[in-house]
Amino acid sequence: MLYGGIEAGGTKMVCAVMDDEGKIIDRVSFPTLGKDETLKNMVDYFKGFEIASLGIASFGPIDLNKSSDKYGCILRTPKEGWENVSFVEPFKELGVPIGIDTDVNGAILGEVVYGSAKGCESAIYITIGTGIGVGLYINGGLAHGLMHPEAGHILMTKHPEDKYDGCCKFHKNCFEGLACGPSIQKRWGKPAVELYNESIVWEIESYYIAQAVADYCLCYSPEKVVLWGGVMHQDGLYDMIREKVADILNGYIPLPKDYIIPPSLGEDTGVIGAALIGKALI
Amino acid sequence: MLYGGIEAGGTKMVCAVMDDEGKIIDRVSFPTLGKDETLKNMVDYFKGFEIASLGIASFGPIDLNKSSDKYGCILRTPKEGWENVSFVEPFKELGVPIGIDTDVNGAILGEVVYGSAKGCESAIYITIGTGIGVGLYINGGLAHGLMHPEAGHILMTKHPEDKYDGCCKFHKNCFEGLACGPSIQKRWGKPAVELYNESIVWEIESYYIAQAVADYCLCYSPEKVVLWGGVMHQDGLYDMIREKVADILNGYIPLPKDYIIPPSLGEDTGVIGAALIGKALI
Repeated sequence: MLYGGIEAGGTKMVCAVMDDEGKIIDRVSFPTLGKDETLKNMVDYFKGFEIASLGIASFGPIDLNKSSDKYGCILRTPKEGWENVSFVEPFKELGVPIGIDTDVNGAILGEVVYGSAKGCESAIYITIGTGIGVGLYINGGLAHGLMHPEAGHILMTKHPEDKYDGCCKFHKNCFEGLACGPSIQKRWGKPAVELYNESIVWEIESYYIAQAVADYCLCYSPEKVVLWGGVMHQDGLYDMIREKVADILNGYIPLPKDYIIPPSLGEDTGVIGAALIGKALI
Repeated sequence: MLYGGIEAGGTKMVCAVMDDEGKIIDRVSFPTLGKDETLKNMVDYFKGFEIASLGIASFGPIDLNKSSDKYGCILRTPKEGWENVSFVEPFKELGVPIGIDTDVNGAILGEVVYGSAKGCESAIYITIGTGIGVGLYINGGLAHGLMHPEAGHILMTKHPEDKYDGCCKFHKNCFEGLACGPSIQKRWGKPAVELYNESIVWEIESYYIAQAVADYCLCYSPEKVVLWGGVMHQDGLYDMIREKVADILNGYIPLPKDYIIPPSLGEDTGVIGAALIGKALI
């Protein structure tokens, strides 16, 4: 059988078709333009395959409450024309079950089923890029809640040498505001890629990421922490984070080997996870 | 049918028998003395009833990994003679299914099924007393993980007027170390009950509790936050916490009415939850 998956982002929409072994047999990417054009491109693409289900892993926030009128809609987005747009309605003409979840939940599902967290009953996926998001796989299922967890905004203790107030418009000292890609650019006046040689940049960055990872370990007790996103391309950053997390936890939780790791599905994590969200409905 | 429940604590063991409506029809409490005597008292008590299952909500940490040799054992405890003692083995002679979980998971289960979080799919129970523990009900089930979450130890930003280093031997600035009952006594030289009139005490206490509640809301997105424990008896403390949580989240998550609440089952929360842990196995 074949399963459709969409990794829906503010810049592009990656559409792919997965087989029963988790292999991507076809893949295409549409730029995220006006909603009508973009949604039509995607519907037409999937008409070319005999898919048994469709899964969507979307940027957000999205309404995941199945009893809500806005189920499957993007709730708030700076992306013009996309607010309150339904990701479910336009695909109903395909006549297959449709599942939707957050992009980070899609990513952790992909990694748990086929990737570096394979076989875990509990694992988390943290992405540190334009924003910070956390995908949760708990007790063998993706976790939601009242809306969906926004664990990227947990509170940080400021680094003593950090004079920057953070770029989150809601919170002065939250993880996303102090550690996402744009915060690095605003704090230092240059993008992260141009700062690879500045040790204080990565001392501060790893200080915040380690605080968050330690809090997540305490809150979720995951078997694996999959850490990814544009910011994670810096050489040596994983080891700096691993060392600081161990210092913070100070032996309270014995961390297994290979605990804080990159994903292993590469650029397919998102669409594989998306396709699995749909497959779960069959 | 009848269901046995044990709320196992370091000071006393509360044993009770619950009916199908969640009513406690009999209840007894044994002091936690030597393990042989205490366990025998409990086994004998339950022999007097026709129970269909037995559930145990225990102080911990306990091994909840069903494939472990130590499943159902207390792992580390200052309580002499109780380390590595199994809570499951001695009850096998009762011939009924036996379930075990943490005391805080028992409490949230009781509140979700019959109490102030009734009907929630996701809810948390925070107890602030001798220690700080968090019970997790996520996606309609109790959550565990690699071991079990130790969300009481998440990191805090120090209050500017707080010179106290915290009483946790692992972490200098964790929630439990800065906000549990013994930390209040050590910081101020008096137990909390004698400090009811000192506003700075409760300003600092609510500052830490609100940070933790905000982080838990972001991490778990619960439908209800049930907050309890000895420290919560201070007049006005709930409202101080509600106000500070709203300030911290700053509108990012719209909090519903009656969101941060006390439990409603009173002193029966623990045993009712324990009995439900067993009942779930039938």
